[in-house]
Amino acid sequence: MEFRLIERIRELTAQPRDDVRLGIGDDAAVLAVPQGQELVVAIDTLVDGVHFPRGTAAIDIGWKALAVNLSDLAAMGASPAWALLALTLPAADPAFVEGFAEGFARLAQPHRLALVGGDTTRGPLCISVAVHGFVPPGQALTRAGARAGDLVLVTGTLGDAAAGLHALQNPLREDDSRASLREFLIARLNQPMPRLAAGTALRGQASACIDISDGLLADLGHLCRASGVGAEIEAALLPRSSALLDLYDVTSALQFALSGGDDYELCFSVPAHRLADVQSDLSRLGCGVTRIGRIVEGDGVRVRGTDGAWLDTDQQGWEHFA
Amino acid sequence: MEFRLIERIRELTAQPRDDVRLGIGDDAAVLAVPQGQELVVAIDTLVDGVHFPRGTAAIDIGWKALAVNLSDLAAMGASPAWALLALTLPAADPAFVEGFAEGFARLAQPHRLALVGGDTTRGPLCISVAVHGFVPPGQALTRAGARAGDLVLVTGTLGDAAAGLHALQNPLREDDSRASLREFLIARLNQPMPRLAAGTALRGQASACIDISDGLLADLGHLCRASGVGAEIEAALLPRSSALLDLYDVTSALQFALSGGDDYELCFSVPAHRLADVQSDLSRLGCGVTRIGRIVEGDGVRVRGTDGAWLDTDQQGWEHFA
Repeated sequence: MEFRLIERIRELTAQPRDDVRLGIGDDAAVLAVPQGQELVVAIDTLVDGVHFPRGTAAIDIGWKALAVNLSDLAAMGASPAWALLALTLPAADPAFVEGFAEGFARLAQPHRLALVGGDTTRGPLCISVAVHGFVPPGQALTRAGARAGDLVLVTGTLGDAAAGLHALQNPLREDDSRASLREFLIARLNQPMPRLAAGTALRGQASACIDISDGLLADLGHLCRASGVGAEIEAALLPRSSALLDLYDVTSALQFALSGGDDYELCFSVPAHRLADVQSDLSRLGCGVTRIGRIVEGDGVRVRGTDGAWLDTDQQGWEHFA
Repeated sequence: MEFRLIERIRELTAQPRDDVRLGIGDDAAVLAVPQGQELVVAIDTLVDGVHFPRGTAAIDIGWKALAVNLSDLAAMGASPAWALLALTLPAADPAFVEGFAEGFARLAQPHRLALVGGDTTRGPLCISVAVHGFVPPGQALTRAGARAGDLVLVTGTLGDAAAGLHALQNPLREDDSRASLREFLIARLNQPMPRLAAGTALRGQASACIDISDGLLADLGHLCRASGVGAEIEAALLPRSSALLDLYDVTSALQFALSGGDDYELCFSVPAHRLADVQSDLSRLGCGVTRIGRIVEGDGVRVRGTDGAWLDTDQQGWEHFA
């Protein structure tokens, strides 16, 4: 079983990489990091019913298991290279395996990411992926470099994935026009697109960077703590998709944008004089980018409402075991 | 929660490694592979009740989760460097976390292995560890180099872990002298010792190598398939501990030694002219090593009984989803 599943994903993702000296099929893989590159590694786990709703399609699970990890590489400004997959399944299920492999491969392929090893075990559905990427020495983006006066930016739109989860859990009556909006939001939940090109473009530009997995407030809070600073956000500036704004009222849309997880957009700080360059660089990549606030002395993240008053933001996003 | 657990293990395993440019606490770790070394990576998962008996002590689970992965590095002849940990727990349980961290750290410490990242999630107990090690270019041991005429050797003794599992599942009446033998076998199950020093000593010596996780017959079978050869084993030559032989009859002890998993000894082939060198090299490291048979043309693994007749070995070890 182990061989067949891992082998199937390897078939679907097969692409020659000179840096893979020995791939799947032995006790371990043997890899060559290109000279003059540092190695960037991360591991993330998806658990059935915790990180995706029970009943999520296998193809979406395969995609998401890789996407959340590639998003970590994006946040570091790294280029992806290799992955390891640990897949725990309740039973050998060829249809699930095929769907999972297809979703994983569909995201791996355009990034030339090679699956170099894995392990399949029997148990409650749970997937861990470890990813490996490269970055020139000293150029990795971290959470720790934000300075008072820097501007805070985010890629894409916020709150879509959380709204997608809400939509999944609250089926509407039949209504064609809204169905497509709902599908957009649900796709944002199930097949997030890691911001890899934006991440590498931010090397040498962003002073700090993080990906938004737990929600803007929680993740910007992590960035601020690591940098020893605070942040002030303008609610009116938060980028929100028309699908989100069409389907949800202003209060819900703001709540999703501030505290909803699973968007996998990047949140980063840049010195003010670099704003124009960063905006044009990312726009040229087809990646929307929006200034949402600024870094300040102190600590914590405050949000100014559209009326100019500070919002009560006790709801600090979602944390495991919270 | 994520931070506290991973941080606790980091505290326990803390040791300076120049090659860790950025460790735990960001979206990913940044690492530097030493020049002139290839990177060897593996991932393995332990599931509650599948890879260890329910009720196994947290300290043993922490040890074993790392040990089974280091054993993969040993089988490749690699020196360990870094690990990533993905831990899924039903609930935040400080006592479990402390025990797990202690077991993990106790094995990591003497190998100067640094925990560089991780993820903790809520769900059914399940642990994936990814390990990273180094090997000089082209010197990794693989399963694929065995040739007819090579000798087959194993480190240590075989069957202890399977007997330990049997002992756990079949409590004896009180009996002091046998209790210590049982404890020895159970410790072999719960705290296997990866053969890292033996693995690196076998670089340039062994023609093929694998670690014994699924049982000798199954794993030697993998080695033979990868090498395109067969093997003939002498039952009388199989190394068995005195604990195993004292507690179990001849038939059971042979069965455990041939088909029992979880020993994490190395099984490898060497050209006949290197036998004496390999035996003295490994003995000098305090690692017992025993010649148990030879590589032959053809395929499959055959076992000759003490009466000279071939055994019926349909029982090919344990496989997940088998």
